[in-house]
Formats: sequence, structure tokens, C-alpha cells
Amino acid sequence: TRQYKIAVIPGDGIGKEVMPEGIRVLEAAAKAYGFTLELEWHDFACCEYYAEHGQMMPDDWKERIGAVDAIYFGAVGWPDTVPDHVSLWGSLIQFRREYDQYVNLRPVRLMPGVPCPLANRKPGDIDMMIVRENTEGEYSAIGGISFPGTAREVVMQETVMTRFGTDRILRYAFDLAQKRPKQHLTSATKSNGIAITMPWWDGRVEEMAASYPEVRTDKYHIDILAAQFVMNPDRFDTVVASNLFGDILSDLGPACTGTIGIAPCGNINPDRSVPSLFEPVHGSAPDIAGKGIANPVGQIWCGAMMLEHFGEQDAADAVVRAIEATLAQAPLRTRDLGGSANTEECGKAVAERV
Amino acid sequence: TRQYKIAVIPGDGIGKEVMPEGIRVLEAAAKAYGFTLELEWHDFACCEYYAEHGQMMPDDWKERIGAVDAIYFGAVGWPDTVPDHVSLWGSLIQFRREYDQYVNLRPVRLMPGVPCPLANRKPGDIDMMIVRENTEGEYSAIGGISFPGTAREVVMQETVMTRFGTDRILRYAFDLAQKRPKQHLTSATKSNGIAITMPWWDGRVEEMAASYPEVRTDKYHIDILAAQFVMNPDRFDTVVASNLFGDILSDLGPACTGTIGIAPCGNINPDRSVPSLFEPVHGSAPDIAGKGIANPVGQIWCGAMMLEHFGEQDAADAVVRAIEATLAQAPLRTRDLGGSANTEECGKAVAERV
Ligand SMILES: CC(C)[C@H](C(=O)O)[C@@H](O)C(=O)O
Ligand SMILES: CC(C)[C@H](C(=O)O)[C@@H](O)C(=O)O
Repeated sequence: TRQYKIAVIPGDGIGKEVMPEGIRVLEAAAKAYGFTLELEWHDFACCEYYAEHGQMMPDDWKERIGAVDAIYFGAVGWPDTVPDHVSLWGSLIQFRREYDQYVNLRPVRLMPGVPCPLANRKPGDIDMMIVRENTEGEYSAIGGISFPGTAREVVMQETVMTRFGTDRILRYAFDLAQKRPKQHLTSATKSNGIAITMPWWDGRVEEMAASYPEVRTDKYHIDILAAQFVMNPDRFDTVVASNLFGDILSDLGPACTGTIGIAPCGNINPDRSVPSLFEPVHGSAPDIAGKGIANPVGQIWCGAMMLEHFGEQDAADAVVRAIEATLAQAPLRTRDLGGSANTEECGKAVAERV
Repeated sequence: TRQYKIAVIPGDGIGKEVMPEGIRVLEAAAKAYGFTLELEWHDFACCEYYAEHGQMMPDDWKERIGAVDAIYFGAVGWPDTVPDHVSLWGSLIQFRREYDQYVNLRPVRLMPGVPCPLANRKPGDIDMMIVRENTEGEYSAIGGISFPGTAREVVMQETVMTRFGTDRILRYAFDLAQKRPKQHLTSATKSNGIAITMPWWDGRVEEMAASYPEVRTDKYHIDILAAQFVMNPDRFDTVVASNLFGDILSDLGPACTGTIGIAPCGNINPDRSVPSLFEPVHGSAPDIAGKGIANPVGQIWCGAMMLEHFGEQDAADAVVRAIEATLAQAPLRTRDLGGSANTEECGKAVAERV
């Protein structure tokens, strides 16, 4: 039987509360679809790991994680005791780098039962995938300050794009677009303003498009694209973007569907010899931690993405359908969505429906 | 009596149709508020100027424009005969650069009679000013391509921020925030990812904030800020941003209020010894040009911004109130807003109400 080995890192705050529900649903899917899971739990987090050891993870974290199929991640962060940049760079961002998880993938979907901030949109109207380059581009470490502290102070930071890094993210996006029913890919650009890197990006998209004749390809400047996400979100299917533009669009998209609190995120290296990481978009939410009221849907939804990554498409689809069926009923939703269920009740409801 | 000299450039397409309405309203304001206007018309445009001379403007355009108080601009662009980058760089962007119009200012306001894409928002709920740095930052010309055409191709582009350029836009934004009732300034940043320029930007904001103790200052990362524009636009009053972030926010903001078609824009050099330029955000709209149905509100609204720039605050306020009163009545609105008026009828309605 198919078996998957998963490193489980609940992290801090509500991460610890939603993770058991994520696991509950994964176990239900395993049972229903005939595979097994081997789980290895790690306590890498601000509370209590950092408190005890003065760092987010042990130096030999990579060996401890070992050869797993994926990392199932809750949320880290506890700003009262550990500054955010320390917790982020000491864990999440380390994984992204060390495992070269060059795809940041976020589904954006209007779900039943989730209040949508856009007028006159109903479930089914919005359904897109945002593919963000996750390793290079605008997030470079090259640059510095000249004449610091003086009136002529100048600060520079380099955007660095490589053909290697650009082509692999484009290939991933085209492959994904090709598999989706609409076969439509939109590229985010700004070649009318960022006049060196972005016209080059456009050229790479054009060249790649030639190998995918079935995929309808278009491009929008990032300013207009952000506006179109609000005005005509139904126009988009798969969207590919550089690191910075993707970062913006993958928060804006979930905001437009009201799903920031339940959105999932995959940090993926399609080469399955290294683990990919699946995490809900929300953080550790210290303000509601410990009350058992956190919404577990983000954690569960990214579990579905993980199953899809393993190739368990039917199980993944079943989990997403179970999420939709659960969200459609107010008594099964958590309070943030106007329901009355607690974390566990909501998680059980999804698990039963898988 | 106070007199203002204005270079009028209607441009192409609907620019030629909405400009007369803009002028009509300005003349009405001049009469009502006791100043006079001296107008000098220029035919710099794709049609027919470029067609005849092979360039957007004569070489001595600066002398021809001469010492005016402002440029009142319609829209240029006619992609059938002149590529967009030629028309933009040959006119609008030339003005921004030559006159060092370092402030790009856009009001974002929910207006009566304008269908809002956000659910449950009514006029008065959203009212902010977006202040965009208009000369430096991410739009630099420094960079290039190494190993072009090979597998190891690398492309770089430098973001360049100066203390000179950053402090002057921050000062403008703080001055503006201080004058507005809420005295609240939000800075767009991304210091958790763009780790050289943006932490430095944050530092400049902090230092400037110390001189404006009455202004409540906060900052948001651009990804969250874009999401907040959709989820909680009422949280924001004055927003200051770098060139790229401001470009994105100043399209996203009007999209959230449904006003992209009527939004105004000021390209301002607060030093009034050089002209500032006022333009509607919309383009020349070749598809509806020549039909007399274009919405003149964007042109009229940026006329109000021009009056404010001249110090004619009462006249400017009167024009904005007249726009609101006109938009509130369906028969006075143009068709794009579900009304039945043509361009001229809408313009006359505003002029009468000034
Ligand atoms: C045309 C383009 C270069 C321009 C910009 O990004 O500055 C436009 O989007 C604008 O906002 O005026
Ligand atoms: C924390 C920050 C560096 C990060 C990013 O911009 O990559 C976050 O916004 C995200 O999207 O995961």
C-alpha cells in the first residue's frame, strides 16, 4: 500500500490547535482512499522550543527531519518573546531555501459560507491558482547604502532574475494551466515601468508559451492586474508572477474571496526527492490561542494540497468537497465565519464528510 | 484679480471630448470665485500631430509651453498608429521628468451613483489620498543582462532610493496628512522581504514622523495593505508609497471604489515655479471615441485638483461638490454609470452646480 512519511510541525499558538484537525482529516482520507501515513512530530517553535534552546530549531534540523515526503506546518510566531523576523527566518524561510521550494502556490476560491467582500459574487464565480516564484527576483540580498546618514545618502537593491529560476516557475505554471479546464494563464508584468527585468520576463513567457499551444496566455501590468482582481476576478484562471508581485497577488486574491483566514499555501519543489511544505496562510494568532475556537479549515485545506502533491488526487478532491460541504452549514462553521462550532467540531465535521 | 495661465493639451480620442467639459467647469468656477484663466491650447498628440511630424511634440516644446501655472492634460494614445510606449514616453513621462513632478497624487473616494465592487459600502465610507513617489525607486534605468541567450542568463535591475527623493515625498505626505481631519498616515513597506531598501524607507518614515507629532503614523507590508484595501478600506486616510507600490495602490484604490473611469491624478511639483500636470486616470479610449458619450468627470475632477494646487480651495471644493451632486442623479450621469446623459450634458450639469 502507498505510504507517505510526513514531518508534522504544529508550531505556536493556534498552530497547535488546528494541526490535530488537519491530521484527523488526513487520516480519514487515508482510510477512505487506501494509503497510510507515517507521522513524525517536531516541536520546533517559539514556545517552548526557542524558550529552552534560544533558537527556533536545532542545528541538525535537516537530519532530524530526514527523508520525508512533505512537511505539514502549522504556524510559528510569538512576538511577545521572539521577534517575527527571528521566528520566520529561523524556520519557515529556512525550509523554503534549504529545500529550494521554488513554487509558492495558492488557490483562490470563493467558498460557500464565507462572507465575500466583493458585491454580487457567489461560490463558483472565482476559482484561480496563483503561482509565485519563491526564491529570487525582488527579494535579493544584493545592495547597500552609500553615504549613510548624509543628505546625499543613496540606497540600492538589486532585483536578480535568472533564466534558470524564471523558466522553471513558468514551466510549472504552464503545466498547471494546461491541466485546468480553462487552460488560461495570465502573467503579471510591469514592463512599461520596470524596464529591464520585466520586458525580459515577458520574453521568457512568450518563448515558453510557444511550447504550450493549448494554453491561452495573456499578460497584465501589476497595477491593472490588482485592479482587475477586484473588478473582474472571474477573468482569471492560473496567474504566474515574480516573487514580489506574487506575494502581493496571493494576499489580494484571498482577500477578494474573504478567505485570508482559511487560505492554504504550498511551498513546493516539484522534484519529490526533497520535501515540500504545506501551511495555512494565517499565523499563530496569539490573541485567540488556547480558546479552542480557531478555524481549522486553512490547516485542512493545505493538507489537501499535500495529498495532491503526493499524487492522491481523488483524496485531495474529497477533502476540498468535504470542506465546502462543512462551510455551507452555519452550525459547523467556527465563529469567525458566523458559526457556532469550535475547532474540534469543525474538524470532525470535515473528517466525517471525507 | 488672480489669474492663472494654463497649457491645455486635450490629446487623443476621448481626451478631445472631455477637455471642453473640463474647461467649461473651470470657467464656471472662475466666474463664481473671482479669478480668471488664460488658456493656451496645444495639439501635441498621436492624431494628428504625430501623424504630421513623426513625433509627439516639437523639439522646442518646453519653450512653447513656457511659463504656465499648470498643464491641463486629457489623454494621449492611439495604438493603431503609434505604439503606447512612444506616445507615453514622448509626452506624459517627458513632462513628469522635465518638470520633476515628484508627487503623484490620487484621491480615492466612494462617490454617489458609482457602482462599488465592494459589498456594503456607501458614499462617505472610503475617502483617502494616495501619495506616490513619482521619479525614482523601482523605476530606475540601471541594470542589464549577463550571458544573454544562454542557460545561465542573469538579469538585474537596481532599485535606487535617495534621501533627497524619499524625504521630499514623505514631507509632502506628512504635510497633507496633517491638514486632513483624520491626521493619519500609512506607509507602504515590505521590509520583511525587500530587506535593504525598505527597512531604510521605514527608518526615514520614523524620523520624519518625529516632526509631525499630531499625525498618527503606521505601516503595512504591501501584500497585507493590498488585502486591507479590499477588506477594510475605511481604515486609511493618507497613504504614502514608493514609485512601484504607489503605482499598484493608486490603481487598486480607485478599483475598490469603482472610480477607475472617473479618477483624477495630479503630477505635482510643489515648487510652483515649474508647472504641475493634471490628468484623468483613464486613457484615450479609441473604442468609444467620437461618439460624444465619454464620461467627463475624471477630466473635471482633475481640474478641481488643479484649482486646489493654485490655492483656490473654495473653488476646488465647489467643483467636487458639484460632481457629487451631478453623479447622484441618474439622468445626469453618462452611460458607463447607468445614466443617459452625453458628455456635454454631464459637463453642463456640473458647471451649473458650481
Ligand atoms: C504607463 C506607466 C509607465 C505608468 C506608471 O507606471 O507610472 C502608469 O501606470 C501610471 O500610473 O501613470
Ligand atoms: C514574511 C514574508 C517575508 C513572506 C514573504 O513575503 O514571502 C510572507 O509575506 C509570505 O507571503 O509568506
